[in-house]
Amino acid sequence: MNIEMIEAAATRLKGHARRTPLLSSPFLDEIAGRRVLVKPECLQHTGSFKFRGAWSAISALDPELRARGVIAFSSGNHAQGVALAAKMHGAPAVIIMPADAPALKLANTAALGAEVVTYDRATEDRDEIGGRLAEERGLTLIKPFDEPLVIAGQGTAGLEIAEDAKALGIDKAEVLICCGGGGLTSGVALACAAHAPGLRVRPVEPEGFEDVKRSLEDGEIRRNPALSGNICDAIITPQPGEITFPIMKELCGPGIAVSEDEALAAVAQAFLRLKIVAEPGGAVALAAALYHAQELEGDTVIAMISGGNVDPEMFSRALATL
Amino acid sequence: MNIEMIEAAATRLKGHARRTPLLSSPFLDEIAGRRVLVKPECLQHTGSFKFRGAWSAISALDPELRARGVIAFSSGNHAQGVALAAKMHGAPAVIIMPADAPALKLANTAALGAEVVTYDRATEDRDEIGGRLAEERGLTLIKPFDEPLVIAGQGTAGLEIAEDAKALGIDKAEVLICCGGGGLTSGVALACAAHAPGLRVRPVEPEGFEDVKRSLEDGEIRRNPALSGNICDAIITPQPGEITFPIMKELCGPGIAVSEDEALAAVAQAFLRLKIVAEPGGAVALAAALYHAQELEGDTVIAMISGGNVDPEMFSRALATL
Repeated sequence: MNIEMIEAAATRLKGHARRTPLLSSPFLDEIAGRRVLVKPECLQHTGSFKFRGAWSAISALDPELRARGVIAFSSGNHAQGVALAAKMHGAPAVIIMPADAPALKLANTAALGAEVVTYDRATEDRDEIGGRLAEERGLTLIKPFDEPLVIAGQGTAGLEIAEDAKALGIDKAEVLICCGGGGLTSGVALACAAHAPGLRVRPVEPEGFEDVKRSLEDGEIRRNPALSGNICDAIITPQPGEITFPIMKELCGPGIAVSEDEALAAVAQAFLRLKIVAEPGGAVALAAALYHAQELEGDTVIAMISGGNVDPEMFSRALATL
Repeated sequence: MNIEMIEAAATRLKGHARRTPLLSSPFLDEIAGRRVLVKPECLQHTGSFKFRGAWSAISALDPELRARGVIAFSSGNHAQGVALAAKMHGAPAVIIMPADAPALKLANTAALGAEVVTYDRATEDRDEIGGRLAEERGLTLIKPFDEPLVIAGQGTAGLEIAEDAKALGIDKAEVLICCGGGGLTSGVALACAAHAPGLRVRPVEPEGFEDVKRSLEDGEIRRNPALSGNICDAIITPQPGEITFPIMKELCGPGIAVSEDEALAAVAQAFLRLKIVAEPGGAVALAAALYHAQELEGDTVIAMISGGNVDPEMFSRALATL
């Protein structure tokens, strides 16, 4: 895994992924007590950064293999990213999703042309289901994070952050990333290390599901005690990846954990001050920027909004906190 | 009023106004039955395109005059645009606002450093109040639309549309603009006429307040019968401007009027498919793109989202339609 792979992914993504800007508001700066810049990957195709990694992996496939199709396991954002990237390549996609995934994500994935296969989290083995389908049809598995081509795709967001920070004259800042398995975090960290070494990446997770934060503290991979029961469902994974963790261990600053209330408040502030739609899991980095000032260093913080695929009911709940 | 003034405004705005992208979603294309591209000016500073015109006018002022301060009449978006542009120039700003303007807009304008003076729409004469303050303090009036420097600033959004359309290989399309007094519409029309003559601008208004549509049909300026009682308050003005109307008459296609329900549905679709926050008045152009297909020509439509300063209650009302 290296910077050349990220740059090659950027070449493959050019003209296909959206180049997201950096947004800001004096009102957010005031809450945070420092300058806050926001990278709105909710504006990316399919509403999350996941399209980058999916496009990167699918575009790099051997055309004959690609024509047979791809398969992915996902509760939502990765599913939509893979579905659209496959469709744009004219390749079939099978997505294995838990039957209790958010309704919007299930519906969108199917509408993007993928074959959605649901399973019961409590009683069925998704790996068995997926493995059988993959073998029968010759599908290629697109992993959600622990895969170099996927990490390379997510890292292209880091290239853009490095470029935009430079244009703004920012050579030192904390870069807060919403972190699940660490694909986005490690990709952005690699990009910043190569192109903007004064930017330090820090993973942000929901309280009680801070496996990356604990793993970084202990120097080895730790697991989450549970995998559900938090509104930031989009970024909850069992543990950091075998490929992503060593990168984060080498390059990232300490992790930060935010509460559900802080994530909801950040969703509301992104609505009010930036006019963008964030899902709770996609807003944890902004929550850290706004409400964990004492854990941050320096006068500038860059926060990734990683996704905006939120049901209307949950969004209205966030707005009710205003 | 000419294209050189718009290009000069673009030079003054460079590095200060945000350059907004074009967004899209296959789900919106499907509703509309054609390709839909959205220019999200809700992502502009202060949440609407108004910052462009305000910056254009204030940056062109003689520095001595500017130091005395500026004054504006506005129910909201123009107020915030002028307040922030003045603050960024270190100039005082007085904003005359109706006491019943949306709470968020009143609060934001004051928080952006402006002196907010409210008046009662039913019993007080805002022109008398503003005129007295302007004379006492030597303030320069920044008109909301019927002012060449303001039209030039709004027109910079049209330069960006022309440039982005060209990059996408689009040389023919309808460009739908949320229209109040016509500053944005006429500015964008001038920019497109000069740089992308295959793009035809069409003003979109709320039903019952379609003064521009009727004026274009009749070939002379018509007034609205009423000035309130519609959720698209942000874009309701008594009549097209003396400067903006002749430009629209020369360059624009027929106007389109949309219902409140259509505007609310467009707010909901912008949330769901683009992850952006639109106010009802800022969503009328998208509503026309989605729900007035039979009034449009060609296979591509570009719709401006002109603003996103919406109270949480109104936004939740839009989400409830999903």
